[in-house]
Amino acid sequence: MQTIRVDTPTAKYDVFAGSGLLQSLAPRIQRVVGRLPRRVFVLTSEPIWALWGQVFSSSFAEPPIALFLPPGEKHKTMASVDRLLREMLRAGGDRGSLMIAFGGGIVGDVGGFLAAIFMRGIPYVQVPTTFLAQVDSSVGGKTGVNLHEGKNLVGSFHQPRAVFADIAVLGTLPVRELKAGLMESVKAGIIRDRSLVRYMEENASSIIGRDARALEKVIVASIRMKAEVVSRDERESGLRMILNLGHTVGHAIEQATAYKVLLHGEAVAWGMIAALYIARTRGTITAAQHQRLERLIHLYGPFPALKLRPAKVIAATGADKKNIGGVRRFVLPVGIGDAGVVEDVSPAELEAAVRYMLEQAKP
Amino acid sequence: MQTIRVDTPTAKYDVFAGSGLLQSLAPRIQRVVGRLPRRVFVLTSEPIWALWGQVFSSSFAEPPIALFLPPGEKHKTMASVDRLLREMLRAGGDRGSLMIAFGGGIVGDVGGFLAAIFMRGIPYVQVPTTFLAQVDSSVGGKTGVNLHEGKNLVGSFHQPRAVFADIAVLGTLPVRELKAGLMESVKAGIIRDRSLVRYMEENASSIIGRDARALEKVIVASIRMKAEVVSRDERESGLRMILNLGHTVGHAIEQATAYKVLLHGEAVAWGMIAALYIARTRGTITAAQHQRLERLIHLYGPFPALKLRPAKVIAATGADKKNIGGVRRFVLPVGIGDAGVVEDVSPAELEAAVRYMLEQAKP
Repeated sequence: MQTIRVDTPTAKYDVFAGSGLLQSLAPRIQRVVGRLPRRVFVLTSEPIWALWGQVFSSSFAEPPIALFLPPGEKHKTMASVDRLLREMLRAGGDRGSLMIAFGGGIVGDVGGFLAAIFMRGIPYVQVPTTFLAQVDSSVGGKTGVNLHEGKNLVGSFHQPRAVFADIAVLGTLPVRELKAGLMESVKAGIIRDRSLVRYMEENASSIIGRDARALEKVIVASIRMKAEVVSRDERESGLRMILNLGHTVGHAIEQATAYKVLLHGEAVAWGMIAALYIARTRGTITAAQHQRLERLIHLYGPFPALKLRPAKVIAATGADKKNIGGVRRFVLPVGIGDAGVVEDVSPAELEAAVRYMLEQAKP
Repeated sequence: MQTIRVDTPTAKYDVFAGSGLLQSLAPRIQRVVGRLPRRVFVLTSEPIWALWGQVFSSSFAEPPIALFLPPGEKHKTMASVDRLLREMLRAGGDRGSLMIAFGGGIVGDVGGFLAAIFMRGIPYVQVPTTFLAQVDSSVGGKTGVNLHEGKNLVGSFHQPRAVFADIAVLGTLPVRELKAGLMESVKAGIIRDRSLVRYMEENASSIIGRDARALEKVIVASIRMKAEVVSRDERESGLRMILNLGHTVGHAIEQATAYKVLLHGEAVAWGMIAALYIARTRGTITAAQHQRLERLIHLYGPFPALKLRPAKVIAATGADKKNIGGVRRFVLPVGIGDAGVVEDVSPAELEAAVRYMLEQAKP
């Protein structure tokens, strides 16, 4: 097991990553929060709970109160939040209660948001079960839900007390989700970690084959990058923006396909393809670097094809949350291992990049 | 105009209290937040906007985008929040937008909560229009909505950038609301400010008659008390609890009457009557002090009568948010000008106090 420290102005906490953490979860949580409160809630999904509920509960003297969120973005809504808050209240939840978010990114975002607003805030712990959630969404305190108009438009910054990333749980993850999640590690490498890029180029088969050592290496490197960035910029005023590489176009694709066709990581893969294209035409990466990074993304593919008109994707970029005062922000890689944010991507550049990406993505 | 500083770990801001602030609101806000952003939202209610919308907008180069919340607790819901968030988004709101909450306590709580969660948090300003909101709810950063199961069970701590309490606006406030609001000042006096108690005893007619000097004196003293307590205990872990004098039973009455019979301040009045009774039987106030404080409360009455069974009120105290781990917390005055929190009020004591209060409150 490895421990990675996150240190923000509002909270300091550890991310624990390793195999088999789930069996001893209760004592591990107690070491962080002290005595467990009268009401411990676990937000999860039925499929995860069917696979791992027994193991999860085994270390608790009194089993936590399970709350369920059906899988899928379409349940990541204010209506679900309203229902779950009321369930918590009826089950005797109070200001001293603890929330555990046990599932993928959606469960983590909703569980964190419930903790942020129930009785104006209770503590919570993240126990992410997907690769994506382990390396990305469980760290950093971003919580929230979607509106009809777009993803993650509502939420809070509310840091967890700890994150427990049990790599063993990834054993039951569908390979498509694993590959999609690995896009966050590719992103981490591109923006911040040259050696992770090389490692992922050279070890794709053991990573996709879930060799425990290879997975742990990629996960720990990815979490380290995320923890470092979050520690330096908790509220995404500057540096943290670079974590959004591939997200401007990625979110637009998700929205244009009504969140029904792609996993988040797959949308980010296509979004990175678009961003890399702009970076190469602007010269912040060379043609050789462009080729190498594009090849790396496809190494963890193939990703679902897209039948979209460019205009639809472009229009959808207008609703992105990262836009302030009407400016369209874009994260572009600078060489391999660095990135920056630009605000002057022209409509023509955006269109060319979207066309280039859709050409590769066509069925 | 007087300026009262609030200084919490997460934010420092000023409360400005005086007559005629509304005419020059835009430059006043600019002095606090810098240049106004592209989208300025104002959450308000139709009746307030009909009376004061013109004056409110007059100082803005571009009028703010008005969002409306119908009056009444029954609209202080997650459903309203969902609708308003979507309106903000469709009107072009982004992370740089500013929210102004212009109305009573409900508008302030909902406006603050919208600001807390829209795009994971935007800045906001409070412009309270009721006495209650000016002296209490606009200061301290508590935001949120009700659940079906009880009041203010969902929300955030999100401090405003500034509060502008324009005493002139109280000129259109119904007298019933004024009197209900004055209960917060009575409460402020009882728990923290002997001289405010005396002032309110001696000047009831000029206060109820809205003599500007008398009102400003009461409002400024009340805000000072609130600001001091909030500055020392932002998240209600200790000291801030004493602000809940009268609230344990008060909330229970509101819930038992489905929020339809009493204004919040009226419920707090009856709740204080119950709390004073317990304090006297325990000896934390003398019989003479009890009589004097009860007389003060009634001086600003009469309050609507209650036809409630004691058991219903007692049951409703169980759902109070201030309970942690099943303990029923009670704020009790200690003499005049001080208060403490106790956790050992027995069912028998509670019942006796509720019966005593309901006897006075019967039709």
